[in-house]
This record gives sequence, structure tokens and C-alpha cells, in this order.
Amino acid sequence: MSTVPMIEYEDASSEVRAVYDDIREVRQTDFINNFWKCLANNPAQLRRTWEQIKAVMAPGALDPLTKEMIYVAVSAANACEYCIRSHTKAARAKGMTEEQYGELLAVIGLAHHTNGLVSSLQVEVDEVFKTPGD
Amino acid sequence: MSTVPMIEYEDASSEVRAVYDDIREVRQTDFINNFWKCLANNPAQLRRTWEQIKAVMAPGALDPLTKEMIYVAVSAANACEYCIRSHTKAARAKGMTEEQYGELLAVIGLAHHTNGLVSSLQVEVDEVFKTPGD
Amino acid sequence: MSTVPMIEYEDASSEVRAVYDDIREVRQTDFINNFWKCLANNPAQLRRTWEQIKAVMAPGALDPLTKEMIYVAVSAANACEYCIRSHTKAARAKGMTEEQYGELLAVIGLAHHTNGLVSSLQVEVDEVFKTPGD
Amino acid sequence: MSTVPMIEYEDASSEVRAVYDDIREVRQTDFINNFWKCLANNPAQLRRTWEQIKAVMAPGALDPLTKEMIYVAVSAANACEYCIRSHTKAARAKGMTEEQYGELLAVIGLAHHTNGLVSSLQVEVDEVFKTPGD
Amino acid sequence: MSTVPMIEYEDASSEVRAVYDDIREVRQTDFINNFWKCLANNPAQLRRTWEQIKAVMAPGALDPLTKEMIYVAVSAANACEYCIRSHTKAARAKGMTEEQYGELLAVIGLAHHTNGLVSSLQVEVDEVFKTPGD
Amino acid sequence: MSTVPMIEYEDASSEVRAVYDDIREVRQTDFINNFWKCLANNPAQLRRTWEQIKAVMAPGALDPLTKEMIYVAVSAANACEYCIRSHTKAARAKGMTEEQYGELLAVIGLAHHTNGLVSSLQVEVDEVFKTPGD
Repeated sequence: MSTVPMIEYEDASSEVRAVYDDIREVRQTDFINNFWKCLANNPAQLRRTWEQIKAVMAPGALDPLTKEMIYVAVSAANACEYCIRSHTKAARAKGMTEEQYGELLAVIGLAHHTNGLVSSLQVEVDEVFKTPGD
Repeated sequence: MSTVPMIEYEDASSEVRAVYDDIREVRQTDFINNFWKCLANNPAQLRRTWEQIKAVMAPGALDPLTKEMIYVAVSAANACEYCIRSHTKAARAKGMTEEQYGELLAVIGLAHHTNGLVSSLQVEVDEVFKTPGD
Repeated sequence: MSTVPMIEYEDASSEVRAVYDDIREVRQTDFINNFWKCLANNPAQLRRTWEQIKAVMAPGALDPLTKEMIYVAVSAANACEYCIRSHTKAARAKGMTEEQYGELLAVIGLAHHTNGLVSSLQVEVDEVFKTPGD
Repeated sequence: MSTVPMIEYEDASSEVRAVYDDIREVRQTDFINNFWKCLANNPAQLRRTWEQIKAVMAPGALDPLTKEMIYVAVSAANACEYCIRSHTKAARAKGMTEEQYGELLAVIGLAHHTNGLVSSLQVEVDEVFKTPGD
Repeated sequence: MSTVPMIEYEDASSEVRAVYDDIREVRQTDFINNFWKCLANNPAQLRRTWEQIKAVMAPGALDPLTKEMIYVAVSAANACEYCIRSHTKAARAKGMTEEQYGELLAVIGLAHHTNGLVSSLQVEVDEVFKTPGD
Repeated sequence: MSTVPMIEYEDASSEVRAVYDDIREVRQTDFINNFWKCLANNPAQLRRTWEQIKAVMAPGALDPLTKEMIYVAVSAANACEYCIRSHTKAARAKGMTEEQYGELLAVIGLAHHTNGLVSSLQVEVDEVFKTPGD
């Protein structure tokens, strides 16, 4: 059970309903997941968070599936079960195959591995890695 | 300075040299970065780690650039400077544009944001997110 | 279920009972939460941990509510469900309003966001941020 | 050195300059710190991040100093040097005394301590900690 | 429920069965725990991961119990419930006494404590701590 | 540079000097490392932290070297450079061989690896791992 009550559409203020409506419109589904129902206790934060997700996760220089996989990778590193599950689901909904998922997992595992080694070893950054932008 | 001395090619055992040679061959460069020179203090680990990276980071169901971006995302979450810098460099070498990089950063920032919110709120996982594989 | 059995008052040694009694006295409640019942398997650690919490969480230059909110923030970053829930409860017991809680969550989310961005970008520390104490 | 070049005011687009101007206006200072100069490579993200910080860190149900201390706590847990230093500086600029800072540090240390213990012990959440909102 | 289906021996390919058989042989038990059943969706990763664990966790310069305790410590810091529980169990199976476990927990708690303090304080590394290898 | 000034013995209060003297006595060295000089800004915290370290790191059911290696493992997971370096040094001072260190690193890397995989996969805990104490 979350630390705040969840706000259902029926009980929501018009400010919250406007965000829920937009989520439904953009995602082409009636489903509002629990994350939004919790955030709705603070309507300004609900709106800010949704506006960001809408802007950042939209197709751009990176395709939506790649973005979902990056989201899963960060969430795995931060041990956020809800985010891992919801974005793994979203990645599959956007076409991630089980073979792609297997490779995503392999990269996540490997990156954690070398992060742990490098942290322990305090490896010095090579000069060539220090210059920005190229 | 790392917690272990760095092993240069000239001072390396034949077991270590064999790995260095393979790195050079696969990457088509003479450059051996500090990470490998540190790992070389334990030749078995050097070989194991290289074999994994070679297998996992090769082209497959995901392209090498996508894999590098996932690597950066995990490393950012784990605050591993060396890994962030080296894999950001590698991503650029594999063709990441600045626009793609900007979107990668935006997703990393956003994922951290909602990871932090969800962790604080202890949002309950929606039933639909619990089923594996579809 | 925890990795160790929980020690109830009835089954506790006199050393453990003395700590339980002090917890009850200081908190003005009969309730001993599971954390202490787990720690009680190592009486010296139980006592050390309680003495620290008693000293650190007492009113001082910061008021007890502010301290509880800081505790929640750290625990959220470390993904510690038990600590998040117990200290969110404690913050409410010490008077945290839902509006204050909403702002606490907003700061936690935002800090994670910029932590993720800064980590990825490896932003150099400005000179003015380097001097201690002023 | 950051992974992207830093954009100075003189070289900035009008979109970036508008954000820099607003930062200066709100903070009543000419100083633009490196974080913004890095973000400016992606003007949309610069604006989004600044709008959020402006909204979230403004006085509200929590005072600005409390917010800065919460920011430091999250950043310490995430090992983000830049964020720790800049928000510690900001907290001092907003009046944090050395005594308050000492207590902030003590709570951060203690919270990490019990987070580590609880994680290892997998302490079960007490029933009373599970209900939201009271 | 995991994000992938679990592969039972009966339904496994011969490649997966070969790994399961080796796990049973090395561990002298018929029990295959869920971790392997999940990994088995990607047979190459299953094999790679098992080969690593077999090599790294074998007796060497460090005894198997010490290795299990180090595994628990890392897993606690990364808030990985499954790994904490399975390696705590393994440590006990390899002879960890409750007294040793109590001390392991105490070190984990303390290390988290000072990690949090040092991160907040950004303590400068003493010169004597910078030289490798002695 | 740390966020607080460092307190040298000459400038320290008698309360701080008493702790410094005890550190020197227990460690049989005149050297006071920077961590203590930072903590000394809050004498009560200095004393509390030292008392804990003295109690927890003393020989007991686990030998001091094993404790130092566990400390390194936690610190690596938390990306705390200072703690990694100082406790790696301490482990070597207590007799850690380079072969033992190589195995410590291997376990740290591997644990991170499987932590990342398990987190992504949300592997369900096997029933046999759920019972405490045996």
C-alpha cells in the first residue's frame, strides 16, 4: 500500500482530471496506473511530471523503444521495482522482442559488473576519455 | 591513482598479452585503456571480463550504439565516472549524435526522478504489470 | 520474514529488555517495532543503534520533524522500504502536513533528477563551490 | 571536464539566454553555475529543468533552507559531488548554521546506517507502518 | 512474479539442461533456484553467469564463507532482496555462526554510516591512501 | 577540499584531543586521517563514530582483515572513494595479499553483476530462502 491514498478519476479535482484525460488521450487507453493516482495528491506535481514524461518519452532522435530500455536500465540500477515492471511492460508494448530483452539484461548485468570493479579499483580516467564532445 | 599498479604490455605475462592482443584486434586500435591495465593484475579475471564484454557488446538483436547508451545509463545511476566517460566516448565513436545524447540524458534524468518519487511513495505495482512475458 | 528471528520482550535477556524499556520510555508508547526485535539478536548492536538514534534524532539545532524528513529522503535514495515507511509515519506523527509531504516528495524527485543529469554529464565543480565553511 | 562543452552567455542562443536571464533574476546574482552551462546544449531540457527547480525550491509549506538540506541528503546518498557541494553552499547561503549542518550530517550518517542494517536483515514492515495518510 | 517465465528442467533445451546438471553436480543438490530458471531464457547468459560464479566463488586465497559474506555486503548496499536472502542462506550453509553474522551486519551498518558521512563531507583523500599496492 | 575545515590537533578542544589520543593509542600510530579532522567539527559525532568503529572493527567472531574486506565491498557499492581507498589500505596493512585482493575484487564485480540481473528480472525469492536462522 502506498504512503498516500490513490485518487480515482471519480474523486479527482478538475485539475487532476485534465491530466488523467491527457494521459488517456496520448496513450490511447483508459488505463491510469497507480503512479499517477499517487501523484494526484499534489496536482501541480502530477502535471509537471506528466508534462516531462510526455516531452521526454516522445519519439525524437531516439525511438520510443530505445528510451524505454534506457528507463529500465536506470530503474534496475536504482532497484525501483515499480519502474522496472512498468517500463519493461511498456518496452514490450512498443515491440521489444525477447531476444532484445535478453541483450538488454546482459548489458545491464555487465555494466553493473564493471561499475563495481572500477569503483573498487579506482581506475584513473584515461586522458582520451576526458575531452568533451568528440 | 588506482589501488593496483597498471600492467603495461611490455611488462605483461603472455596470458595478459594474449588478451591485450585480442582487445586490439577486435577494437582495431593499439590503445589499451587503464581499466584493462588494472585488471591485468589478475589474469584470469582480465580474460573473463574481456570475454564477457566481447560477447555482450557485439552486434545482436540490439545494435552496438544502443548497448553503449544503456551502459552509460547504468553507469550514471551507479555514479561510476570512469565507466560514464569511457562509454560516452564509445557511444560517440559508434555514431551517437549530440541530439541523441541530449535525449539519452533527458531519459536518464527523468528515470531518476520517477525512481525517487516511486521509492518515496512506495507505489503498489498494478496487477497488469505483474505478468511476465507479455 | 527477516533473516533472523524476532526477539519478543518476554523472551529477551535483561540487557535487551533494558533497551526496550528505554525505547518505550523515550517514545512514550508500548510499541516496539520489528527493527529492534531483529537487532536484539545482537544486544550490543541493539544498544549502540538505539543510543545513536536517541542522540541524533532528539531536538537540537534542527527540529525533530525536519530530521524525520531528511531520514525519509536518504531512505528513498537507498530504496529502503522499511525505513521509508517507518520514518514517513514518524514524520506524520510529528506533525508533517500533507502539503509539507508533497513538497518533500517534490524535492526528493528533483534531487534525483539532477543527480542523474550531473552524474551523466560529469559537470565540473565551480570554484565557488569548493571552499569549506562559508 | 564535463562530457559536453559549456555554453557561455555570449555564445548562447536567445532561448538559452532567456533562461540564463531568468536564473539571474530569480537568484539575484550574475553567476551562472556550470550545471546550467552544460544543460544549455539541449535548450528544451535547460528550460524544463530550470522551471522545475524554480517551482519546487520556492518557499511553500517547507522553507527554502529545509529544502536545501533535503537536497543535500539525497545527493549524498547518490554520491553526487557536484550536487552535494552546490546545495551545501546554497543551504549556507540561506542561513544554515554549522550546528544545523552538524545535525544534518548526523542524520544522513544514521539513516545510511539503519538503511544498511534493514536491507541486510530484510526486516518485515510492521502492520502499523502500512496504512497511508495517517 | 519475475519479468520472464521460469524454465523448468523438463521444458529446458539440452544447452540449458547441461548447465542445470553442472549446478547440481557442483552444489551436490537437486535444487535449482529461481535465479537460474529466469536466466535460462537466454541460454548463453545462463552459461556465462554460471561459469563465472563457479570460478569466482570456488575456494582460493579467500575461503568460500568469506566470499559469501562479501556477496551479502554488496547485495545489501544494492538493496537486492533476492541476493541478500540467497547468499545469507549460503553463508549459513557454509558454516557462518550467528555471532559471525552479527558482526557482518555491524560492519555493513557501520560502512554505510561512514560512506554517508564521507559523501556529505567530501573528505579529501589523504596522500598516504593514494599509492597503490602497499 | 571538504565542506568543512579540518581540525588539527593543535587547534582542537580537549574533547576532540581525547578522541585523537585514543585513535593514536588504539592504532599505534601518530597519524590522524582527514575523516576524523572533518568529523571533529562536531565533537559529539566524532566521539560516537570513533566509539563505534573501535567496537565494531575489533577482533571478534570475524577477524579484522575479513571486516576490512567487507568494508571495502560496501564502500565500492556506494561509490565512496575515500572509504574504498582507506579501507583497502587498512586491509593491506592487516595482511591482505594481492591474491586475496584479486578474489575480493572478483566477488565484488560478480555480486554487482547478479544484483543488476536480479533487479531487472525481479526474480521471486525461493521459499527455502525465506526462513530465518537456518
